[in-house]
Amino acid sequence: MRSSVIVYGAAYSVYVRIVRITLQEKGVAYDLVPVDVFAEHGVPADHFVRHPFGRIPSFEHDGFSLYETSAITRYVDEAFPGPALQPVELRERARMNQIIAMLDNYAYLPMVWDVYVQRVEPREGERLDEARIASGLHKVRAFIIALSDMLGGQQWLAGSRPSLADFHAVPMFDLFEKAPEGAALIAAFPQIEAWLGRMKTRPSYLMT
Amino acid sequence: MRSSVIVYGAAYSVYVRIVRITLQEKGVAYDLVPVDVFAEHGVPADHFVRHPFGRIPSFEHDGFSLYETSAITRYVDEAFPGPALQPVELRERARMNQIIAMLDNYAYLPMVWDVYVQRVEPREGERLDEARIASGLHKVRAFIIALSDMLGGQQWLAGSRPSLADFHAVPMFDLFEKAPEGAALIAAFPQIEAWLGRMKTRPSYLMT
Repeated sequence: MRSSVIVYGAAYSVYVRIVRITLQEKGVAYDLVPVDVFAEHGVPADHFVRHPFGRIPSFEHDGFSLYETSAITRYVDEAFPGPALQPVELRERARMNQIIAMLDNYAYLPMVWDVYVQRVEPREGERLDEARIASGLHKVRAFIIALSDMLGGQQWLAGSRPSLADFHAVPMFDLFEKAPEGAALIAAFPQIEAWLGRMKTRPSYLMT
Repeated sequence: MRSSVIVYGAAYSVYVRIVRITLQEKGVAYDLVPVDVFAEHGVPADHFVRHPFGRIPSFEHDGFSLYETSAITRYVDEAFPGPALQPVELRERARMNQIIAMLDNYAYLPMVWDVYVQRVEPREGERLDEARIASGLHKVRAFIIALSDMLGGQQWLAGSRPSLADFHAVPMFDLFEKAPEGAALIAAFPQIEAWLGRMKTRPSYLMT
């Protein structure tokens, strides 16, 4: 029998992993139903019913369908028992929302597509675009400086406990670090490196 | 004396207007401090202190600095008295969060940059890119179909009252409609057209 919670997507996706980490942190059982958006013949036609823009993940809970990762993770936090993953204090909560938006707007493309994919998973026969990697690293550096300022001496990105901001960040950092330049940039920010080290010990990281 | 709330930005910006509409709906007084990111010599250097990525708006409230529009509007709703601008019911709230993310990810660029700017405000001497307008309209159509499905027979985008989703949407629709093709596309979706008509009667629309 299927669980009442279904995630449609592929394990390779940063955004699918954000949702899976959040479900794991919340202690919610779910089924992962495979959808490969990079399949030879394109996004499977039936997926457009669940996600009109053909992206992953999409999500279902007891007949309620949802897409857009940051909406899914907030819903998961609010709909299920378990630890609260959003700070109650107003300004910590605002910082969490800000960091999630910053990750989507300034980190995902340069970390994952400009640096990780180009350096670590270049397409067969494609010429490596060193200028794109360099430009990506430049953007990521600006992002990490801003994030490092916000982290300061704290253990977690927003507030005194891990929040949706931490879980949104870790899959991007995880891929970025697989590029040698990525690892070197992270190592240049010891507080960010220590934060990432803490995230990597969590079952939600180890099991996704 | 300055208000305790400051918005840095320019009236021409969709995202600045989203924040101003939200403040207006909430009944919060604020100062708008001009920052022109399209100035001849680029983003003013002192703005990078408030926004390391050089975008607008940035926001201040009693010593608390914040950027990223969706984080600012949630903070404004939660920090000030006045009508609640986020639904309490879980799934309505999730739909609101989803629509805000959809507007940022699938509507802003095609509505504002591919269609409005190209058709209504083309740069001097620049050749109009009709292919870009056509491709933008195609994307906006997919977005409006999805939004129209979510609206159904409701008055407002998420829940029984206007929410942050409505205020996030209206400045994008307002510019898009200034292009003749944009107005025609909106008119093809009577429920969306009626929703936009309702939004346009609000003081928050009329005063920003």
